[in-house]
Amino acid sequence: MKAVMLKINPRATVIDITNEIPPGDISAGAFALAASYKFAPKGTVHVVVVDPGVGSARGAIAVETGDYFFVGPDNGVLSWALRREKIRTMRLIKNERFRLKPLSRTFHGRDIFAPVAAHLSKGLQIRMLGPELTEIVKLPWPEPAKRKNVIKGEIVYIDRFGNAITNIAETDVVPSESARAQVQIGRKLRCALAEFYGSVKAGQPVAVFGSSGLLEIAVNRDSAAKQFGLRVGQKVIFTLG
Amino acid sequence: MKAVMLKINPRATVIDITNEIPPGDISAGAFALAASYKFAPKGTVHVVVVDPGVGSARGAIAVETGDYFFVGPDNGVLSWALRREKIRTMRLIKNERFRLKPLSRTFHGRDIFAPVAAHLSKGLQIRMLGPELTEIVKLPWPEPAKRKNVIKGEIVYIDRFGNAITNIAETDVVPSESARAQVQIGRKLRCALAEFYGSVKAGQPVAVFGSSGLLEIAVNRDSAAKQFGLRVGQKVIFTLG
Amino acid sequence: MKAVMLKINPRATVIDITNEIPPGDISAGAFALAASYKFAPKGTVHVVVVDPGVGSARGAIAVETGDYFFVGPDNGVLSWALRREKIRTMRLIKNERFRLKPLSRTFHGRDIFAPVAAHLSKGLQIRMLGPELTEIVKLPWPEPAKRKNVIKGEIVYIDRFGNAITNIAETDVVPSESARAQVQIGRKLRCALAEFYGSVKAGQPVAVFGSSGLLEIAVNRDSAAKQFGLRVGQKVIFTLG
Repeated sequence: MKAVMLKINPRATVIDITNEIPPGDISAGAFALAASYKFAPKGTVHVVVVDPGVGSARGAIAVETGDYFFVGPDNGVLSWALRREKIRTMRLIKNERFRLKPLSRTFHGRDIFAPVAAHLSKGLQIRMLGPELTEIVKLPWPEPAKRKNVIKGEIVYIDRFGNAITNIAETDVVPSESARAQVQIGRKLRCALAEFYGSVKAGQPVAVFGSSGLLEIAVNRDSAAKQFGLRVGQKVIFTLG
Repeated sequence: MKAVMLKINPRATVIDITNEIPPGDISAGAFALAASYKFAPKGTVHVVVVDPGVGSARGAIAVETGDYFFVGPDNGVLSWALRREKIRTMRLIKNERFRLKPLSRTFHGRDIFAPVAAHLSKGLQIRMLGPELTEIVKLPWPEPAKRKNVIKGEIVYIDRFGNAITNIAETDVVPSESARAQVQIGRKLRCALAEFYGSVKAGQPVAVFGSSGLLEIAVNRDSAAKQFGLRVGQKVIFTLG
Repeated sequence: MKAVMLKINPRATVIDITNEIPPGDISAGAFALAASYKFAPKGTVHVVVVDPGVGSARGAIAVETGDYFFVGPDNGVLSWALRREKIRTMRLIKNERFRLKPLSRTFHGRDIFAPVAAHLSKGLQIRMLGPELTEIVKLPWPEPAKRKNVIKGEIVYIDRFGNAITNIAETDVVPSESARAQVQIGRKLRCALAEFYGSVKAGQPVAVFGSSGLLEIAVNRDSAAKQFGLRVGQKVIFTLG
């Protein structure tokens, strides 16, 4: 993909956000994009290839927002980033001028998304790619439920350190509620909210508001996911102090 | 290696094709190079360091073709890419001016291949590197055997998704033969040729012509290699429709 | 982190030395840095984020040496590289002008180290970052002990190939002592010093002076760490010939 991009735009600067999304895991890709895209320079073209439906009838899309472009399959992987963006236009990628030929059935990252991204980075008008879309596939974001002093949420992502990130945001809580707050997952895992991983002894679980502003459950100097068998979708009970 | 290259040529653009070749697996490196090099811009210097014989008497070579340069150990890792290229000159890297000193015995990627590649990217004439070679080590490419409506081939590469790529090319088959074609590997794995991975249910095996134009066996949303214990060298029977 | 850097300095060239340090393993990070930093161009800013104490009271530091800058947590991870460098100034990073806001408690790589590195790469004077330090946290380097013809050392790093690198340097030995030298680790592993990995049959152990000038124990075409259960800290007995 990088070779294809540099052939079209030799002056492009290409960086990897992650190559560690589990194969075909659309929501993990959606989370990683939503957690990082805002840190990129204005005008950045974000390309995502978590594409288990490659070759099928799923669409290929390009989206222009206030600050960025997004290119990828229309399977929801872009949707968690886009729900926070001001959309300018969404396009179905149809114009065959901006793809490799012959088009493979298994690697549209190389054959469609990379060339489209490179052309956009060189100033191609997005309307050249294809017709405007009014709807794209959206992945539902599981909203946490707050009742009195309890927030019920769930794990939405496991990071490379084995930390379990939840859908409970720091902004869902007022600071006074954080003192003595507790997290429970299943029967075995209970821990307190703290300021940082090292607040507890090595090997002990701890909850912190992490670098995406979301509550995460970690084990100091170990993998919470491995130690407690955590997985995406598990329920998280957050009891405020 | 990248630091060494940028010290010599600060304007070089360096990208990784893969860092996932199993240690010392020359044929996996040869396959990954052959599958990707054609997508790079003209003039690209391809450097390959799958080098289990580092420090021994195996040679270090640089090759100039119509469009590219190739640099690496003379152990066959370049040979599958080169068999499709118009060779201009093949050189044994002997000139000590273009290497790091002291030369280590375990990391010629850093000490020889990276500096040579960086110098070539700056315009060094390849003949400066050392004497011309008429022969380099070649890895045999296992040609599939076609008899009537059966092609007997083998697995030549397992990709990072666990898809098993074979030596049977799409160009070995006329389109009319593809309808109802079947693949068999060992006793347990039988599946049909389809257009894309998602043609079968999740967890089911499927055969497709993949992004290198070769027949591959996949499991939709899972790893075929893990599910069926596939490995390079296994025989593949492809029965045309 | 790369996105953050490029937003501040779009002309920066950013490369990864490694993303394979085991989470929180400070001495592995220190070793990888010490083994590689010297190969980078003069003026390079080295950023290290092995930071298990992120969010705690551990300091964030920036160091200027004769040729380089180093940025990271004050936990010893920079110290093995710095012990070979001529220090110009060491600074505690305090100035909030050169960090992201809001500052997270779990990812100072993104919020502090990356922006500081990018500003340094643009020419920021290091004294702008904060007060001078006279001491930083140092990781002890385990010096080997030589008595008569025996050097007692230990494993300091396991590389991605499973080679076990020791603290015994080629410069600790005179060439005449190398002939017939032997290595022993525990009861099961004995092997001879040789010139290169391929000096022994596939699957056999061998000791060589590797690309960092240190004695390493390898298994030809396999992982010594896996085959012999090697781990950092294990004692190594090196008997000279």
